[in-house]
Amino acid sequence: MNQELIELLQQVKSGQVPVDLAATRLMGGMVSDLGFAQVDLDRQRRCGFPEVIYCEGKDPTWIVQVVERLHAAQQSCLGTRLSSEQATHVLDRFPTANYDSLGRTFWLPVGPEADPVGRVLVLTAGTVDLPVAHETIQTIKAMGVGVELIADVGVAGLHRLLRHLDHLRTADVVIVVAGMDGALPSVVGGLVDVPVIAVPTSVGYGTAFHGVAALLTMLNACSAGVVTVNIDAGFKAGYTAALIAKRIYIGKEG
Amino acid sequence: MNQELIELLQQVKSGQVPVDLAATRLMGGMVSDLGFAQVDLDRQRRCGFPEVIYCEGKDPTWIVQVVERLHAAQQSCLGTRLSSEQATHVLDRFPTANYDSLGRTFWLPVGPEADPVGRVLVLTAGTVDLPVAHETIQTIKAMGVGVELIADVGVAGLHRLLRHLDHLRTADVVIVVAGMDGALPSVVGGLVDVPVIAVPTSVGYGTAFHGVAALLTMLNACSAGVVTVNIDAGFKAGYTAALIAKRIYIGKEG
Amino acid sequence: MNQELIELLQQVKSGQVPVDLAATRLMGGMVSDLGFAQVDLDRQRRCGFPEVIYCEGKDPTWIVQVVERLHAAQQSCLGTRLSSEQATHVLDRFPTANYDSLGRTFWLPVGPEADPVGRVLVLTAGTVDLPVAHETIQTIKAMGVGVELIADVGVAGLHRLLRHLDHLRTADVVIVVAGMDGALPSVVGGLVDVPVIAVPTSVGYGTAFHGVAALLTMLNACSAGVVTVNIDAGFKAGYTAALIAKRIYIGKEG
Amino acid sequence: MNQELIELLQQVKSGQVPVDLAATRLMGGMVSDLGFAQVDLDRQRRCGFPEVIYCEGKDPTWIVQVVERLHAAQQSCLGTRLSSEQATHVLDRFPTANYDSLGRTFWLPVGPEADPVGRVLVLTAGTVDLPVAHETIQTIKAMGVGVELIADVGVAGLHRLLRHLDHLRTADVVIVVAGMDGALPSVVGGLVDVPVIAVPTSVGYGTAFHGVAALLTMLNACSAGVVTVNIDAGFKAGYTAALIAKRIYIGKEG
Amino acid sequence: MNQELIELLQQVKSGQVPVDLAATRLMGGMVSDLGFAQVDLDRQRRCGFPEVIYCEGKDPTWIVQVVERLHAAQQSCLGTRLSSEQATHVLDRFPTANYDSLGRTFWLPVGPEADPVGRVLVLTAGTVDLPVAHETIQTIKAMGVGVELIADVGVAGLHRLLRHLDHLRTADVVIVVAGMDGALPSVVGGLVDVPVIAVPTSVGYGTAFHGVAALLTMLNACSAGVVTVNIDAGFKAGYTAALIAKRIYIGKEG
Amino acid sequence: MNQELIELLQQVKSGQVPVDLAATRLMGGMVSDLGFAQVDLDRQRRCGFPEVIYCEGKDPTWIVQVVERLHAAQQSCLGTRLSSEQATHVLDRFPTANYDSLGRTFWLPVGPEADPVGRVLVLTAGTVDLPVAHETIQTIKAMGVGVELIADVGVAGLHRLLRHLDHLRTADVVIVVAGMDGALPSVVGGLVDVPVIAVPTSVGYGTAFHGVAALLTMLNACSAGVVTVNIDAGFKAGYTAALIAKRIYIGKEG
Amino acid sequence: MNQELIELLQQVKSGQVPVDLAATRLMGGMVSDLGFAQVDLDRQRRCGFPEVIYCEGKDPTWIVQVVERLHAAQQSCLGTRLSSEQATHVLDRFPTANYDSLGRTFWLPVGPEADPVGRVLVLTAGTVDLPVAHETIQTIKAMGVGVELIADVGVAGLHRLLRHLDHLRTADVVIVVAGMDGALPSVVGGLVDVPVIAVPTSVGYGTAFHGVAALLTMLNACSAGVVTVNIDAGFKAGYTAALIAKRIYIGKEG
Amino acid sequence: MNQELIELLQQVKSGQVPVDLAATRLMGGMVSDLGFAQVDLDRQRRCGFPEVIYCEGKDPTWIVQVVERLHAAQQSCLGTRLSSEQATHVLDRFPTANYDSLGRTFWLPVGPEADPVGRVLVLTAGTVDLPVAHETIQTIKAMGVGVELIADVGVAGLHRLLRHLDHLRTADVVIVVAGMDGALPSVVGGLVDVPVIAVPTSVGYGTAFHGVAALLTMLNACSAGVVTVNIDAGFKAGYTAALIAKRIYIGKEG
Repeated sequence: MNQELIELLQQVKSGQVPVDLAATRLMGGMVSDLGFAQVDLDRQRRCGFPEVIYCEGKDPTWIVQVVERLHAAQQSCLGTRLSSEQATHVLDRFPTANYDSLGRTFWLPVGPEADPVGRVLVLTAGTVDLPVAHETIQTIKAMGVGVELIADVGVAGLHRLLRHLDHLRTADVVIVVAGMDGALPSVVGGLVDVPVIAVPTSVGYGTAFHGVAALLTMLNACSAGVVTVNIDAGFKAGYTAALIAKRIYIGKEG
Repeated sequence: MNQELIELLQQVKSGQVPVDLAATRLMGGMVSDLGFAQVDLDRQRRCGFPEVIYCEGKDPTWIVQVVERLHAAQQSCLGTRLSSEQATHVLDRFPTANYDSLGRTFWLPVGPEADPVGRVLVLTAGTVDLPVAHETIQTIKAMGVGVELIADVGVAGLHRLLRHLDHLRTADVVIVVAGMDGALPSVVGGLVDVPVIAVPTSVGYGTAFHGVAALLTMLNACSAGVVTVNIDAGFKAGYTAALIAKRIYIGKEG
Repeated sequence: MNQELIELLQQVKSGQVPVDLAATRLMGGMVSDLGFAQVDLDRQRRCGFPEVIYCEGKDPTWIVQVVERLHAAQQSCLGTRLSSEQATHVLDRFPTANYDSLGRTFWLPVGPEADPVGRVLVLTAGTVDLPVAHETIQTIKAMGVGVELIADVGVAGLHRLLRHLDHLRTADVVIVVAGMDGALPSVVGGLVDVPVIAVPTSVGYGTAFHGVAALLTMLNACSAGVVTVNIDAGFKAGYTAALIAKRIYIGKEG
Repeated sequence: MNQELIELLQQVKSGQVPVDLAATRLMGGMVSDLGFAQVDLDRQRRCGFPEVIYCEGKDPTWIVQVVERLHAAQQSCLGTRLSSEQATHVLDRFPTANYDSLGRTFWLPVGPEADPVGRVLVLTAGTVDLPVAHETIQTIKAMGVGVELIADVGVAGLHRLLRHLDHLRTADVVIVVAGMDGALPSVVGGLVDVPVIAVPTSVGYGTAFHGVAALLTMLNACSAGVVTVNIDAGFKAGYTAALIAKRIYIGKEG
Repeated sequence: MNQELIELLQQVKSGQVPVDLAATRLMGGMVSDLGFAQVDLDRQRRCGFPEVIYCEGKDPTWIVQVVERLHAAQQSCLGTRLSSEQATHVLDRFPTANYDSLGRTFWLPVGPEADPVGRVLVLTAGTVDLPVAHETIQTIKAMGVGVELIADVGVAGLHRLLRHLDHLRTADVVIVVAGMDGALPSVVGGLVDVPVIAVPTSVGYGTAFHGVAALLTMLNACSAGVVTVNIDAGFKAGYTAALIAKRIYIGKEG
Repeated sequence: MNQELIELLQQVKSGQVPVDLAATRLMGGMVSDLGFAQVDLDRQRRCGFPEVIYCEGKDPTWIVQVVERLHAAQQSCLGTRLSSEQATHVLDRFPTANYDSLGRTFWLPVGPEADPVGRVLVLTAGTVDLPVAHETIQTIKAMGVGVELIADVGVAGLHRLLRHLDHLRTADVVIVVAGMDGALPSVVGGLVDVPVIAVPTSVGYGTAFHGVAALLTMLNACSAGVVTVNIDAGFKAGYTAALIAKRIYIGKEG
Repeated sequence: MNQELIELLQQVKSGQVPVDLAATRLMGGMVSDLGFAQVDLDRQRRCGFPEVIYCEGKDPTWIVQVVERLHAAQQSCLGTRLSSEQATHVLDRFPTANYDSLGRTFWLPVGPEADPVGRVLVLTAGTVDLPVAHETIQTIKAMGVGVELIADVGVAGLHRLLRHLDHLRTADVVIVVAGMDGALPSVVGGLVDVPVIAVPTSVGYGTAFHGVAALLTMLNACSAGVVTVNIDAGFKAGYTAALIAKRIYIGKEG
Repeated sequence: MNQELIELLQQVKSGQVPVDLAATRLMGGMVSDLGFAQVDLDRQRRCGFPEVIYCEGKDPTWIVQVVERLHAAQQSCLGTRLSSEQATHVLDRFPTANYDSLGRTFWLPVGPEADPVGRVLVLTAGTVDLPVAHETIQTIKAMGVGVELIADVGVAGLHRLLRHLDHLRTADVVIVVAGMDGALPSVVGGLVDVPVIAVPTSVGYGTAFHGVAALLTMLNACSAGVVTVNIDAGFKAGYTAALIAKRIYIGKEG
C-alpha cells in the first residue's frame, strides 16, 4: 500500500501536519487558478520540470498572465508554438526571455542555469526540418541537458550520415527529425545501440499528407529501438530525451 | 495526322485491302468473345505481350477456357494470383504449364523460348517479401528478360545491401520489394543511376495498414529515380521493368 | 572525420591488417547468406543485441534455419509473432527454447544469463491487453533487464492506478499498454518524471479501428514525456525500454 | 394508432375544426417561406425550442431576414458560428441582441427570461478549448438552464480536476470539452454517476487531425456513461444537456 | 476546496477514523486484485452501477473469476460481447444468470430487482439492427429502468415511424439504432423534445465502412438534440439513457 | 398547398370517407407489423415497386416470414444478398421462386409478368465483375424493363468496347460495372448522350481498397453524364435505371 | 459488327467519301488544337451538348480563347467554377454572356434558345446549399430543360418537405442538394417513384469532412432509387438530370 | 565480394592511394557542409546527375548558398518548387539561370549543353495539368533528353488522344499527367508497348482529395506497364524517364 500516504495520515493524526496542509498535498499540491487556466505549480516536483505553455491559438494576454504566475512562483518557464505576435507580447513584458524565432520557443529561466549533463544528438534528414529540430534543441537545453545538431543527412546520400558514425554511437539518445519518406530513423536504428526517438515533420507534398507518411514509416521502422512522437512534435522528443539523459547522469546519483 | 490510318484507307480505296479486313483492323484487331470474357488477341501486337490472366476470384472453368483460347491462337499465356484450387484445374488441362506456387503464377509458352536479354535485379527487404518477388521474377522471365534475386537486404543492416553495390550499379533496372517501413527504395535510389521500381508489400502489422505505410514511403522517396506500383503488385513491376530492358536491348535494333 | 576508418586504413597500409579482413569489416562484418535470408551476425556488436526473428507469415523451415545459424554462431535468439504451428517446429528442433504462448515469443539463450539490471514497469489498461504485455516482458527479460507487471489499471477507475504510485515513480521506464481510448499514458505521464513508452493495442471495436484510436490518443498525449510505438508492438517498446535501462546501469560503467 | 390524428379527423368531421386549419396542422404547422429559407415556426412547439440559425457561410442579409421573421413571430432567436462581419449586420439591426465574440453566438430573447433551472457543469481540458465551451454555455443559458464553467483541468495534472470532485458529483449533466488526446471524459466518466457529454475540439496539431483524434478517444471511452457530439459542436452538447436538465426539473411537473 | 476530504482528515486527527481505513478510502475504496484483473468493487458507490465485464477476447476462465469476485462481494454483474463459448462457461458456473444470445449479454443480479422506473424508447431502422438493440435493452433493464422496443422504422418508409409519434414524444430518452445511411436519428430529433442517443451499427456494405458512414451521419445530424456513441455500442447508449432516466425519477428524490 | 390532403379532409367532413380509413391513409397506408419487421405494404403504390428484402445478416426464418407476408398481400417479392443457406430456406418454402446463385438474388412474382419495356445496357470491365452485374440484371428484369449484358470490355483493350458503339448509343441507360481503376465509365460517358450509372466493385487488391479506388474514379469522372452508386450496389443501379426506362416508356403515357 | 464503320469504308472504296474526310471522321471528328487545349468540337454531335469549360485554376486568357473557339464554331458555351476575376475577363470579351455569381457559372448561347422541355425539381436541405443548387439550375437551363427550386427543406423539420409532396411526385427527376448529415435524399427516395440524384455539399464542420459525411450517407441511402455525384458537383447532377428529361420528351420522338 | 573496395585497399597497401584520399572515397566522396545543409557533391558521379534543390519552405538565402556551392564545384544546378519570392533571390544572384514560372523550376547549367538524346512524350489529360507537366519537361531537358508535349487529351474525348497514336508508339517513355479521375494512363497503357509513368495531379474538387483519387486510379490501372509517382511529382516522373532514355541511348555505348 501507498507508504507516503500512510505516513502523511499518521502525521495528521499526531498533529505534526495540520489538516489544511495535508488536504493541499493530498489534492496534488498547489494550483493557481486564473479562471481561463489552472496553472499547475506542482509539476516541477511531480514530473521534474515546470508546466510548459503550448501557445498555439491562445490570446497573448493569457500567455503573459501564465508566465507571470509561474515566474512569481520562482519557476522557470518554457513556451512553444509561439507566433511572432505572441512573441512580441511576451518579450515586451519579459525582455530577458530567450526567443528562438525559427523554433518558435521562448525560455525564461529563474536563477543561474547549471552546466548541461549528458549528450543528445539531433539529426535532420533535410534542411527544411530545421524549425522542428530547433524546438527540440531549445527544449533539451532548457532541461539542462547537452545537445548537438547534425542537419541534412537524409538517406538519399548515405555517406553524409556515415561520416558521423562516431558521433552517433556515443550519444545517450539520438533524435531523428525527418519528413517526406521518413526513412532516416530506420537506417540510424540499425547502426547504433542507443534509443532513437523519431520525429516526423509535415514536410513534403502530395501523399506526404502533412507528415502522416513519415509517421507511418517511423512507426513501422524495421529497426527495433525506434520510438515515435506526434508530427512536428519536436518538443516532446526533446523532453523525453532529456528525461532519459538526466536519469543516466543525475537520477541515479542519490 | 495519323499516317497509318490514311494508308489503310488508300488501300481500301484501291481495293488492296477488303472492307471486312479493314474494319477488323480499325476496330483494334481480333477479339474472341466467350460471353463472360472478351479475349484480346491483339494485345501481343499492340503492347508487345499477350493478354495476362488475373485469376483472383474467377471460376476455374473460366480461366481454363481463356487459356485454351489464347493457346489455340498460338499465344503464350501468363496467369497471376492463382489459388491452389485454380492451379489444379489449369495443370490438369495443361500439364506442361510452369506453376510457381510461392509466386502464384503459371506460364504456358508457345514454341521455344529465346535467350533472355538484359538484366533486372530484384531486391527484397525481408524474407517475407519473397512471394511478391516471385511473381515479379516469373513475369520478367516470361517476357524474355534476364533477372536476378537478392533477398533480405533491408536497411536495418545496411552492410547486407552495400556488399552487393557492384550488382546494383550494373543492372538495367532495379526492383525493390519491401513491406513495413518501405525504406529500402529510398536508400537504393541514392546509390545508383538506374531506374528503381518500388513494390510495397502487405507485410507488417498495425499501422503497416496492409502495405499502405510502405506505399507512402515509396511515393515520398527522397531519392529522385524511384517509381511505384500497387501494393503486392509484383507483376506490374516486373512487366514494366521488362518493357524497359527490352527497349534497351531489342527495341532500338531496327 | 571518422577516426576508426583512418586507423583501419593505416593498418592496411602498414600490413597489420590484411586486405580481406579490412574489406569484411568495411562492409559491416559477417553476414550469413541462406538464400531466402541474409542473417546479420554483426547486429550484436553494432546494436547490442542479436538479430530478432519476426516470424509472422514465414515458412517454419525458414525460421528453424535462421535459428540454427544464429545458434551456431553462438548468438542468443529471440523470435516474435510465432504461430502455434511455427512454435511446434521450433520446439521440436530446440526443445530447451523458452516459449510464451500468450505473448507468442520464443527465446533460446546461449550460455548462462546474467542477473537482470534496472527496472521497467509494464502497465496494462485492461485484461485484454495482456498478450501484448507478455511480448514486451519476454523481450525485456531476454535483454537482461528487470521487469514488473501491473495489469488492468485503466482510467475508468483511477484509484486502481493511484495505489501503485510508489512503484510508478521509482521505475527507470514505464511502459503503458492500452487499447480502446488509449488514455492511460496521458494520465501516467502527468504523474511521473520517467520516460513513458505507450503501446496501443488492437483491442476494442467500431471506431477503435484496430488500435488506431488508441495510437492517436497516445501521439497526442497532453503529457510531455510520452513516446509511442506501432500498434501491438510490444516487442519494440520492450526493446527500447531495455536499451534505456541498460544505458543507465551498464553503458556508463566503462 | 395515433390518437391525436383520429381526434383531429373527428373534429373535422363534426365541423369543429375547419379543413384549412386541419390541413395546416397535419402538414406540421406554420412555415414561413423566404425563398432562400423555410423558417420553421413550429419548432418551439415540437422540440421545445425555436429554430436556431447556423450562420456559417450565409449571406448576412439572409441571416437578418430570418431573425426578423422569428422575432416577428414572437420567438426568441439563437444564432451560432457567427463571423464578426455577420455579427455587425445582426447587431446593427438588433442592437439589444446578446453577442459572445469568443463563442461566436448571438441571442435575441423575446420577453423576460425565467430563472434558470438545473445545473450543467462544463469542463475544459485546456485554455484553448474555451471558444467551444462558450458556445455551449450560451446555448444552455438561452434554453433557461443553469450552467457553471471550470476551465483547464486536463489529465496531465489530475489534481486540478480532483479538487472539484464535489462539483462534478452534484451536477445534472457534465459536459467535457477537450482537444488533443481527448482523454478527460474517460477520467470524468469513471468518477461520477451522471451522464457525460464529450465535445472534441479541433485543438492540437499533426495527428490531432483537427479533432478526429479526440473524437475517437471519446467514442472509445472506457467509462460507460459517455456520449459524444461532432467536433467543436459546443452547441449540440449544450442543447442536449439542457433538454436533460429541463426534463429533470420541468418536464415531469405536469 | 474539497469538503469531504477535510472532514475525513479531521476525523483522522481526532481518532474517529483509523489511518488504515482513511488510506483505503483516499485511494478510492476497495479493489480486488486477481493478477490479470483489478476488480473495481467501488464502482457501484462511485458511478451508481457495478463494474461491467467486457468479454470480447477474454479467456472464459478469466471471466468466470471476475464474476465470482463481484458475486462474492454481493454486487450484481452484467457482461457484454459474450461469445457462445464464453456463455457456456459462465452458465455452467452460474446457471441462474440471464443470457441473451442475440444481444450477447448475461446478467446475474444479486437479490430481488426493484420495479423499473422511467421509460426509454429504443428504435431500430432495420431488422438487422436488432442484436445491437438487444444489448441496449438488457443494459437498461439491468439498471432498473423501463424500456420499450419498436423495430424496423427506417426513413425509407416514413409512415412506419410517424404512426408511433405518440410513443416518441412521451419517452424520457429515445435511443435510435441504425446502420447504412444512419438517417433515422436526424428525423427523430426533429420530431421530439427529448434527448436522442444515436447508435450507429456496422450494418451495410461497401462505403458503409462497417458503421463509419452511419456514425458520421449521426455526428452531423441536422437536428440539435442528438448525441452519439461508438459503432455497435448498444451498451453505452443504454447505460447513459438509464443514468438520465434514473436521475429524472430517483436522483432528485433525496 | 397539398391538394390531395385537402380533398381527403373534405371527404371526411362530408362523410364520404370514414375517419378510420382516412387515418390509415394519412399515416401512409398499410404496414404489417411482424415485431422484428414492419413490412411496408404501401411501397408499391408510393414508389412503383414493392419493398425489396436485403437479406445480408438476417435470420432465414425472418426472411421467409417477410416473403410470406408480401406474397399474402399479392405483392411480388425481390430479395438481394442471399447466402446459399438463406436461399435453401426460401426455396424450400417457395419452390417456384427464381434464384440466381451468381447474383445472389431471388424473385417471386405474383401473376403473369408483362413484356419488358425499354432497354438498359449493362457493361462490365472484367469477368470478375459478373456477380454484381447479375444482381443488376435480375433487378431490372423484376421491374419489367429490358436488359442486355456485354461483359469484359475494360479500357486496357479499347477496341473491345468500341466495336459495340452502336449498342451503346441506342440504349436508354448504360450501367457500367467496374473494379480496380474504375476507368470505364469515364470513357463510356464521353461516347454517348445517355445517362451512365457507374457501379464500383470490390474487385482488385492493395490500393483498390475493396472498391474505394473505383468509386473515387467514378465520382471524379471527367465525363459529365455519369452518376454513381455504392460499392457492389448492383441492385441500386438496376433499380434507378429501371425507374428511368419506365418513365420514358410508361410514365408519360397517361 | 459496327455497321456505321463498314458503310463508311464502302463509301471510301466507291469513292463517295474522300480519304481525308474519312480519316477525320474515323478519328472522332473535329478537334481545334490551341496548344494548351484541344477543343473538342465533336462533343455536341457525340454527347448531345458542347464541351463545357471547367474554369477552376485556369488562366483567364486560356478560358477566353476556348470560348472564342467554341463560339466561332457556332457552339453554345457553358463554363463552371468561375472565379470573379475570371468572370471579369470573360464578360469583358463577351458582354452578353449570362453570369450567375452565386453558382459561379457563365452561359453564352448561340442563336435563340428553344422552350424548355420536361421538369427537374431541385431541393436543398439548407440555405447554405444554394450555391451548388445554382450551378445545377444553370446547367439544366442551358441544356434546354425546365427546372424548379425548393430551398431549405431538410429533415429536421419534415413538414417543410411534406407540404411539397405533390411537386415531388410529378417531377421527371428530383435532385437533392444537401450537406452535413446528407439525410434528405433517403427520405425523398422513400416518397417518390422517380429517380433521385443526390448532391453532397461541403457544408458543415468537424466530421462533415468537407462533404464526405454527406456523400457516404447518400451512397448508403436506404431508399433504392438514389444515385450520387461528387461533392459540390451541381453541374454533374444537372447534366445527368437533363439527359434523362430530354430522353423522355425528345429522344424518343424520332 | 565488392571488387572496387578490394582494389582500393590494395592500392592503399601498396601506397598508390594515400590514406586520406581513400577515407574520403570510402565515405562516399565529397560533401560540402554549410551547417544547415550538407551539399552532396558526389551525386553526379553516383547517380548520374547533381543534387537537385527542393525549394519549398526554404529560406531564399539558404537556396542561394547551395546554388553557389554547386556552381563553384562546376556542377549544373536544378531547383524545383520555387516560389516567386525565392525566384527573385536566385535570379538576382544568377541572372543567367533559366526560370520557368509555370513549372516553378530554375536551371543553371555549367558549360555548353549537349544535344538531347532519346524522346520522352508528355501527355496531359487537361489544361490545368500544365504546371506539373512543365516541371516534368524542364527536368527532362536539364538531364539532356528530348521531350515533347501533347496537352489536353483526356478520355472524355478519346479521339483527341487517338489521333496522336503514331507519336505514342514511337516514344521511349510516355509520361501521363492527369488529375480528377486519372483514367488516361490506363487507356494509354493499353495502346503502347513502352513504359508509362503516371503523374497524378491535385486537380479537381470534392472526392478528388487533392490528387488521391487520381493516384489510386493509376496504382490500380488495368493496363500492365504503368508505374506511378507522388501527387504533382512532375520532377520525379521526368527524372526517371530521363534515366531510362539515357540508358537506351548512352548507357550502353561503353
